[in-house]
Amino acid sequence: MSEAGAVSPFEHQLVRTNINASPGTTGAGVSFTPLEHLDGIITPSRLHFERHHSGIPTIDPDKHQLFIQGLVRKPLVFTSAVLARYPMVSNIHFLECSGNSFRANSKSAKHLSCGSVHGLISGSEWTGVPLKMLLDEAGIQAEAKWLVASGADAGAMNRSVPLSKILDDAIVALYQNGEPLRPANGYPMRLFLPGWEGNMSIKWLQNIVLTREPAMTREETSKYSDLQADGTAKLFTFPMGVKSVITSPSPGLLLNKDGVYQIKGIAWTGSGKIRRVEVSADGGKSWADAQLDSHVLPKALTRFRAAWKWQGNKAVLLSRATDEFGAVQPTKTVALSGNSPGNFYHFNGIQPWRVHTDGSVSNGFV
Amino acid sequence: MSEAGAVSPFEHQLVRTNINASPGTTGAGVSFTPLEHLDGIITPSRLHFERHHSGIPTIDPDKHQLFIQGLVRKPLVFTSAVLARYPMVSNIHFLECSGNSFRANSKSAKHLSCGSVHGLISGSEWTGVPLKMLLDEAGIQAEAKWLVASGADAGAMNRSVPLSKILDDAIVALYQNGEPLRPANGYPMRLFLPGWEGNMSIKWLQNIVLTREPAMTREETSKYSDLQADGTAKLFTFPMGVKSVITSPSPGLLLNKDGVYQIKGIAWTGSGKIRRVEVSADGGKSWADAQLDSHVLPKALTRFRAAWKWQGNKAVLLSRATDEFGAVQPTKTVALSGNSPGNFYHFNGIQPWRVHTDGSVSNGFV
Repeated sequence: MSEAGAVSPFEHQLVRTNINASPGTTGAGVSFTPLEHLDGIITPSRLHFERHHSGIPTIDPDKHQLFIQGLVRKPLVFTSAVLARYPMVSNIHFLECSGNSFRANSKSAKHLSCGSVHGLISGSEWTGVPLKMLLDEAGIQAEAKWLVASGADAGAMNRSVPLSKILDDAIVALYQNGEPLRPANGYPMRLFLPGWEGNMSIKWLQNIVLTREPAMTREETSKYSDLQADGTAKLFTFPMGVKSVITSPSPGLLLNKDGVYQIKGIAWTGSGKIRRVEVSADGGKSWADAQLDSHVLPKALTRFRAAWKWQGNKAVLLSRATDEFGAVQPTKTVALSGNSPGNFYHFNGIQPWRVHTDGSVSNGFV
Repeated sequence: MSEAGAVSPFEHQLVRTNINASPGTTGAGVSFTPLEHLDGIITPSRLHFERHHSGIPTIDPDKHQLFIQGLVRKPLVFTSAVLARYPMVSNIHFLECSGNSFRANSKSAKHLSCGSVHGLISGSEWTGVPLKMLLDEAGIQAEAKWLVASGADAGAMNRSVPLSKILDDAIVALYQNGEPLRPANGYPMRLFLPGWEGNMSIKWLQNIVLTREPAMTREETSKYSDLQADGTAKLFTFPMGVKSVITSPSPGLLLNKDGVYQIKGIAWTGSGKIRRVEVSADGGKSWADAQLDSHVLPKALTRFRAAWKWQGNKAVLLSRATDEFGAVQPTKTVALSGNSPGNFYHFNGIQPWRVHTDGSVSNGFV
C-alpha cells in the first residue's frame, strides 16, 4: 500500500533526455520523450516532452486568473474553481513541438536515440472546457477574427490563433491523462489546440484578447516560421503535417540475432486520422502495409506494427504515413524542397534507420 | 529540463488512500484511486488502484520466465525479450477489483470520499501479446477447456480461466499507459482479461497450465465467490456488472454556493460498451440523460457529465448506467436481493450521494 505507485528499478532507461538552456537564456530548454522505450498511444505525463522558453512558473491555482477581453461585448475573468463548473470534453490527442525532429539531419544525430531526435511528440488524454463556450458568454464582436493568447510564464509567451480554430475544437485544458495538468505542461490551465503546432497551445494560460488581426508576436515571426529558399519566411503553418517514425528497432536498441522482429512506431497528422502506414526494410524499394492498432483517433498518435524477418544483413527501415485525406508523408528531399536547407520547423520527412550486420542501428540521414 | 516531470505542490490531495494489511497477514492491502480528483478515462499509473495478497515482488525482467504447459502439445517458456518479438495489441480498458465498493454499505463510509469507497477501479491503455498466439504455438490439446494462471508473488496467486475468454481477448500485458508495467501492477508481465474481475488478471505472470477443469483455487472458492442467501456460494462471476458512480459532487468536495454545477462520473461494464447514463438529483423521482464523452470504448471507463442547478437545498444525487445490451445498473436493494446481506464481491448498486444545505456531501446509504 502506498500513496503512489513507483516505476521498476530495472527501468532506469525510462527517462527523458534533455538539451540545456542556450547560453544567455534563462529557463529555456527541451526534454524529449523516450519514444523507443514506450508503446501504445498514451505517454505517461512525467515523460511528456517539454519545451520551455522562460522556465516553469509555480502557480497557486486559487490565485490564478484567466482574462478574456478585446473585441468582446463583456470582458470576463475565470478562476480554476469557476471553470470546474463549466461543461468539459475529454479527448486523446497528440501534442508536437513544431521544432520536433530538428536534429534528424545533424551529423551528431548518427547514434542519437529515436526519442532524442523525434521525442518532441507525446500523446495524452486532454480534458477541459471548450473555449467557444467562454467566448460565447463574453460575446464575440463581429469584427473579431483572431485572438492572442498569452501565458503566465516569465516571458509571457504569446501566440495569435484564428478564431475559426477556437470555435472548432480548442479547449482550456485542466486535466492531462486523468489528473490536473502538471506544472511543466501549464498547470493550472493551458490552451489546447488539437493537431496544431505545440507552441500555440499556450501554457499557464492567463490572457485572451480578441483581435481583428494576428499580433505578429516574436514567436510567430522570428521563431516558428519557415525560412524559404528565397529568404522569405512562411508564416502560420498551423496543423502539424502527416508523419510517422519507427520507434523500434531504432538507434540504441540492439538486435540480438537474426529472426523475426516487430517493427513498431507511431504515426500522426494534425489534419485528422491516419489511414495507412507502410514500412520498408530495403530503403524504399519495396513497401508493405503495417497493422494499425485498434484506437485510430483523430489528431492522436496511431500505433503501427509490422513483422520483419531480419536475416542478419544490412537493412534500411522506413515508415510512411498516409492520412484520411490522402496526404502522404514526404521523403526528406521533398519535405525540404520548398524551403531552405536550413529548415528547422515542421520537418516531417521519412526517417531511415540503418540496421548494421552487428545488430546495431544508426540514423540513415547521416 | 528534467528526466521526469513532477506533480504540482498544490495538488497534495492527489494521492491514494490505503487500507493496511489485516493483522496476521503479510503484504496484503488495498490502495484506492482518488476518483474524486480525476477526470477523463485514463488513470495515471501511479494512482492506479492496487490490491495485493502477498506483497509486491521485485523482479529482474531478464531472469523472469513465463511457462506454458499442461494440455499442450509442446510446453513453452517465454522471457520478456522474446515476447517483445511477438505482435502486440493495445487497448484502453478498465480494471476493477471484484471487491470494489465493499465499503459502500458500511456505517464508517458516511464521510469517506468517492475514491476511498469506489476507487478499486481504474482505466489504462494496456498493451501486450494476445495469449491466444502463444497457446496456438504451444498447441492446444482438444480436451483443454480451462487454464490455471499463477503469479511470481510470494503467495503464487492463482486463478482458473475458461479457455474461451483467453481465445477471445486475453493478453499478456507488458505495457500500461505507454510504459512498461509498474511493479505493483505486475512487472514485467501480467495476464489481462478485459472486463473481468481484476483478481483474475494475474500479476507477475509466471505459469500457465492448460486443464480440463478449473482448479478450484482458494481465490475462486473461499474468496471471490458470492455468498447467497441460502448459504451456498455462487462461483465464477467473471465479467464485472454494469455500474457507474458520480465522482463529483461527492463526499469531501464542498459545494460553495448555489448555482450551476457539473455532475460528473464514470460508468463501465465488463460486457461491452456503455449506452446510456442517467442522473437524478431528487433521489430517483426524476431522471435526465447525462452527456457521454466522445470516447465510448468497450470494457473501458466512460465519462459522463450533466449540468445541475443547485438551489442550496437538500438533494440526493444518483447515476444509473445502461450497457449496449440493455442491462441496467440496479439499486442497492436489487443488487443484493439474490445474495445474503453480507454480500461483499461484485456489488454494483446505484450509489446515492446526499447533498446537505451547507454544501457538504455524504454517503446516502448511511
